[in-house]
Amino acid sequence: MSSACVLIIGNEILSGRTQDTNLNYIAKRLVDLGIDLLEARVVADDEAAIVQAVNEMRSKYDYVFTTGGIGPTHDDITSDCVAKAFGVKNVLNPKAVALLQSAYKDPSALNEARLRMAHTPEGATLIDNPVSRAPGYQIGNVFVMAGVPKIMQAMFDGVASQLSGGAPILSRTLSAYLAEGDLAKPLADLQELYPDVAMGSYPFYRARKFGASLVLRSRDRNRLDAAVAELAVAIRAFGVTPIEDEPVDD
Amino acid sequence: MSSACVLIIGNEILSGRTQDTNLNYIAKRLVDLGIDLLEARVVADDEAAIVQAVNEMRSKYDYVFTTGGIGPTHDDITSDCVAKAFGVKNVLNPKAVALLQSAYKDPSALNEARLRMAHTPEGATLIDNPVSRAPGYQIGNVFVMAGVPKIMQAMFDGVASQLSGGAPILSRTLSAYLAEGDLAKPLADLQELYPDVAMGSYPFYRARKFGASLVLRSRDRNRLDAAVAELAVAIRAFGVTPIEDEPVDD
Repeated sequence: MSSACVLIIGNEILSGRTQDTNLNYIAKRLVDLGIDLLEARVVADDEAAIVQAVNEMRSKYDYVFTTGGIGPTHDDITSDCVAKAFGVKNVLNPKAVALLQSAYKDPSALNEARLRMAHTPEGATLIDNPVSRAPGYQIGNVFVMAGVPKIMQAMFDGVASQLSGGAPILSRTLSAYLAEGDLAKPLADLQELYPDVAMGSYPFYRARKFGASLVLRSRDRNRLDAAVAELAVAIRAFGVTPIEDEPVDD
Repeated sequence: MSSACVLIIGNEILSGRTQDTNLNYIAKRLVDLGIDLLEARVVADDEAAIVQAVNEMRSKYDYVFTTGGIGPTHDDITSDCVAKAFGVKNVLNPKAVALLQSAYKDPSALNEARLRMAHTPEGATLIDNPVSRAPGYQIGNVFVMAGVPKIMQAMFDGVASQLSGGAPILSRTLSAYLAEGDLAKPLADLQELYPDVAMGSYPFYRARKFGASLVLRSRDRNRLDAAVAELAVAIRAFGVTPIEDEPVDD
């Protein structure tokens, strides 16, 4: 069983300019890969903050996925910081140079700023960017990816097959037009019987009625199905019909 | 000048079930309040992880805003964890009980599960919940709020006036149909001249053309406007017209 965390790098997330969607994409993918995503952090374009976060996370988790800060402008400092975190130099990578050269018809376009995108920490291996060429890279257990969602997703897809996961984390959801406060006791009792099935309760309000979606997650299909069956009985005891999957929130 | 961080608590964010939007809301509000949001973290419904994050963040930042985990079900463990982080008991709060009593017509509805929502760490003061009554609270520099966006927003609005900020962080954006790699050098030069104006570059692709939005941020209106004026000159030097504000990404 492997653990992971996501490190989102960028002032634009912390200023509210940009709504991050990369965490949600990676989170869903890791569920399918059977890798436990245990934490995510958002830090500013600040060297000390990035270096500290990279070092804390790479010692704590099996995989660290970073997004953002690998473009050509002065605020793109992720590679300098990752190199510093690993105690190596951030050097020109010949393979990355070749990739960038292939992207520009005019050789003079590969100016000093763009060559920043061809620098990687010593020892890094490249991650392909089929969208705009400038690559991401892996060093140790840290995967450094772009911030632009389309590019990040393509990069993640490229490395996903190399990651060691476990059995996929399976999920089933029962929803009911019942208040969480009424469901809480039977749900807690069920959780005690099924410590290997994680149970979460998420309230919703739809068509002027309160309800809750009960999300059950486990790697064991039989245990998951058994818990869902017992939960359905508990919901019916209120005279309410459980709904598989969930109503959309208002 | 005050600093802040956001702590998002909940398995549903790390499993990808839920796309968080609370960080973005709080981020924008803190900009207007002149408070620097320096970090955000997402942790699971896990006691050790929550306690550690609360203690790290409350010693590091002036304000900590938590979202999630204060409902009636067994997976709502935020209050137990915040109490543990502060080394106090999580106790029944008479004012919170009164608020919940006012919310239910039938007194028997206030069962043991719902009374969990009336527990707060010793020494906490309540934060009003005009949506569904169950309050949030403040203890020390930690503001504990609901995870449901409508409720979280109402709670934040209720405490915003108590927060000590500085001058609001002002922002102007110039966009240009120019590649980031071409803009990088003049932008870096400008950043050196204006260390008090934070400059970020965000690429976009629209109507089959690449461009970049250059976001300049400062507390000083004069410096901000001067930097924007110089940036406009630099963009025009490429024979391109700068656009105030930004095109929508594809």
